[in-house]
Amino acid sequence: MITTDILIIGAGPTGLFTVFEAGLLKLKCHLIDALPQQGGQCTELYPKKPIYDIPAYPEILAGDLTDKLMEQCKQFEPGFTLGERAETIEKQEDGTFIVTTNKGTKHQAPVVAIAGGLGSFEPRKPLIHNIADFEDKGVEYMIKEPEMYRGKNVVIAGGGDSALDWSIFLSDVAKSVTLIHRRNEFRGHLDSVEKVQELKNKGKINLITPAEVIGIVGDDKVKAIVVKQAQHIEKEFEVKCDHFIPLFGLSPKLGPIANWGLEIEKNAIKVDNSLDYQTNIPGIFAIGDVNTYPGKLKLILCGFHEATLMCQSAYKIVNPGKRYVLKYTTVAGVDGFDGSRKEAPKAVVKAFD
Amino acid sequence: MITTDILIIGAGPTGLFTVFEAGLLKLKCHLIDALPQQGGQCTELYPKKPIYDIPAYPEILAGDLTDKLMEQCKQFEPGFTLGERAETIEKQEDGTFIVTTNKGTKHQAPVVAIAGGLGSFEPRKPLIHNIADFEDKGVEYMIKEPEMYRGKNVVIAGGGDSALDWSIFLSDVAKSVTLIHRRNEFRGHLDSVEKVQELKNKGKINLITPAEVIGIVGDDKVKAIVVKQAQHIEKEFEVKCDHFIPLFGLSPKLGPIANWGLEIEKNAIKVDNSLDYQTNIPGIFAIGDVNTYPGKLKLILCGFHEATLMCQSAYKIVNPGKRYVLKYTTVAGVDGFDGSRKEAPKAVVKAFD
Ligand SMILES: Cc1cc2nc3c(=O)[nH]c(=O)nc-3n(C[C@H](O)[C@H](O)[C@H](O)COP(=O)(O)OP(=O)(O)OC[C@H]3O[C@@H](n4cnc5c(N)ncnc54)[C@H](O)[C@@H]3O)c2cc1C
Ligand SMILES: Cc1cc2nc3c(=O)[nH]c(=O)nc-3n(C[C@H](O)[C@H](O)[C@H](O)COP(=O)(O)OP(=O)(O)OC[C@H]3O[C@@H](n4cnc5c(N)ncnc54)[C@H](O)[C@@H]3O)c2cc1C
Repeated sequence: MITTDILIIGAGPTGLFTVFEAGLLKLKCHLIDALPQQGGQCTELYPKKPIYDIPAYPEILAGDLTDKLMEQCKQFEPGFTLGERAETIEKQEDGTFIVTTNKGTKHQAPVVAIAGGLGSFEPRKPLIHNIADFEDKGVEYMIKEPEMYRGKNVVIAGGGDSALDWSIFLSDVAKSVTLIHRRNEFRGHLDSVEKVQELKNKGKINLITPAEVIGIVGDDKVKAIVVKQAQHIEKEFEVKCDHFIPLFGLSPKLGPIANWGLEIEKNAIKVDNSLDYQTNIPGIFAIGDVNTYPGKLKLILCGFHEATLMCQSAYKIVNPGKRYVLKYTTVAGVDGFDGSRKEAPKAVVKAFD
Repeated sequence: MITTDILIIGAGPTGLFTVFEAGLLKLKCHLIDALPQQGGQCTELYPKKPIYDIPAYPEILAGDLTDKLMEQCKQFEPGFTLGERAETIEKQEDGTFIVTTNKGTKHQAPVVAIAGGLGSFEPRKPLIHNIADFEDKGVEYMIKEPEMYRGKNVVIAGGGDSALDWSIFLSDVAKSVTLIHRRNEFRGHLDSVEKVQELKNKGKINLITPAEVIGIVGDDKVKAIVVKQAQHIEKEFEVKCDHFIPLFGLSPKLGPIANWGLEIEKNAIKVDNSLDYQTNIPGIFAIGDVNTYPGKLKLILCGFHEATLMCQSAYKIVNPGKRYVLKYTTVAGVDGFDGSRKEAPKAVVKAFD
């Protein structure tokens, strides 16, 4: 059982900044995310695109924003359960909550902050009749541990940035990389497209287009995939491989959280914005894209504010009866849980000679 | 008469970010500030100190934060009335407001956003019986136009960062700089203190300590000041000068805004935080440190959120009946009023050879 002060569901920008604000109040956080990496929509959907409305950043790439938020909160040593979906929640007699993931990992905390964005990112799966039989037996819809592909034969399917970028990355790790797409044209960032062309020329990426994977061959694990190629004449053939990774994009689904007894409106969780973004269940808050209230804007900067106000109420739940007086970071400094301390340089008092 | 869409009172971080958010909605802004420069508390009180809780900035100097906010909003060409205090407000028949400053400058807008922080920064004045007679006739409490001191004899009084930093700056501009402080010890950033020592050694700054300015000599303008020095024996003498600049700090006072008919609580303006931070007077909003509501935190990041939500309502007032659909900056790009355009690089569509 993982225990913490604030259990955060969703490691997008809102969840990550919550760790920092909670840390200032000496509250520990643990985050659950269905994705294998932090950053939510920013890293999953548009890591290389610029955002222009993060305050005091005239321009920042969504991926860099995530890195900065990680750097800012790391002194408060957040725990992460990645690649797992929060599935059920149970309120305990002592007032705490237990949240269990689809893989059975259990987490306990007195405060739950749902920062689930548009929902849990779930892969779009190709229509291959026997694909379910091979999930986690050679078929992966997202890449969690690139090292597991070392020395293996890998087939990637897809025509966007993920397919291009992982093909590039794995061309250095895997024994062979085959990239299959149902059209001849790929769509991605200029630098990714150029890199794939270069690796193809060097024979480090095998390209099969226009083509579709229509079957998987194997017993207890993937041995080959069946490709249907539709160039001049349609033809089918097998490609031997250890892994088949269809990267057709992940799309967010509110999913199990919709059944937690929370008031839902327009596919989002209703909160009290006149107070602290609490839901109808005391101890459960909803912040960032996942919540709704009159005038709500689904913007990153709004999640930051909501997280900050929410942490004040979390403090009162975790420390009943204790009073908290706001101190400016500039004045009080920041004490990390890792023993680090940041503080403004002291003024010098000096008489001139 | 200066006319604009949103008249912002206060050019602190909240006011500056309002310009950006308003600009995204194609609304023009004009800002009034009692200070000669933008940045509010950040530049007036702690420009060289680090802030640790600006989201995605693990550390940023308050002065740099101001620079970034200025850079972010400049494409929306804000107007500024600096060094003047907003004094009175009148509602017109057509629903617009006219705000007049202490210097008589008039501004008209359908929406007024008060981002006045802790209030209008007003100088602490030394107790010199005839000082009021010389205000703007050689006595200045803040430096608006450094160029006006070129070739002049200047006396600065004070023992903190402002006194040190302006002495350094003007030592290059003025004919002579004399720095007077009632103690021997100055208090400031290490680099400022070291620089003053260096300039003193070179004879570019005259230092008189411990001493106080007790009188001003002149007819229609300052000709000299009277100094009382208290080293071993007390003595009084005159120092010839064209300007006397007492830099004893500026402190914020809510001031005239308190009489605008707005609901005031704890020296702040009550707003409806369940909606859009509007005050009890329709068309007037209060955002940032200047407002209060249940759970209010006087933090910079909260002002950013409040400004953003407020702009949505401002849009409806300026464009009655028009509908606004939120677009992400990443997706829609940003069109500056200066003709500039920022947008994410387009994805490339390519078939590999
Ligand atoms: C193309 C694009 C451009 C954008 N441009 C801008 C912009 O310019 N400015 C701006 O402010 N915003 C922009 N946005 C929106 C911005 O990305 C979101 O506002 C932001 O990501 C919301 O952050 P969040 O942390 O609330 O949620 P998210 O980023 O959505 O993160 C939520 C996380 O929670 C996880 N999760 C949800 N439910 C569960 C569960 N049950 N179990 C485990 N994990 C779960 C999800 O997997 C996800 O990783 C853009 C969005 C897109 C798609
Ligand atoms: C030493 C110190 C350390 C701090 N550290 C932090 C920190 O670490 N994190 C954080 O988030 N916050 C911190 N703060 C607080 C932060 O500076 C404020 O929250 C922030 O400046 C508020 O911004 P604002 O734009 O709302 O108001 P302000 O910055 O106060 O700006 C308001 C402006 O309005 C002007 N004004 C007011 N009334 C009038 C009028 N009638 N006419 C003309 N002009 C007027 C004032 O002159 C002023 O320039 C700190 C503050 C101090 C003093």
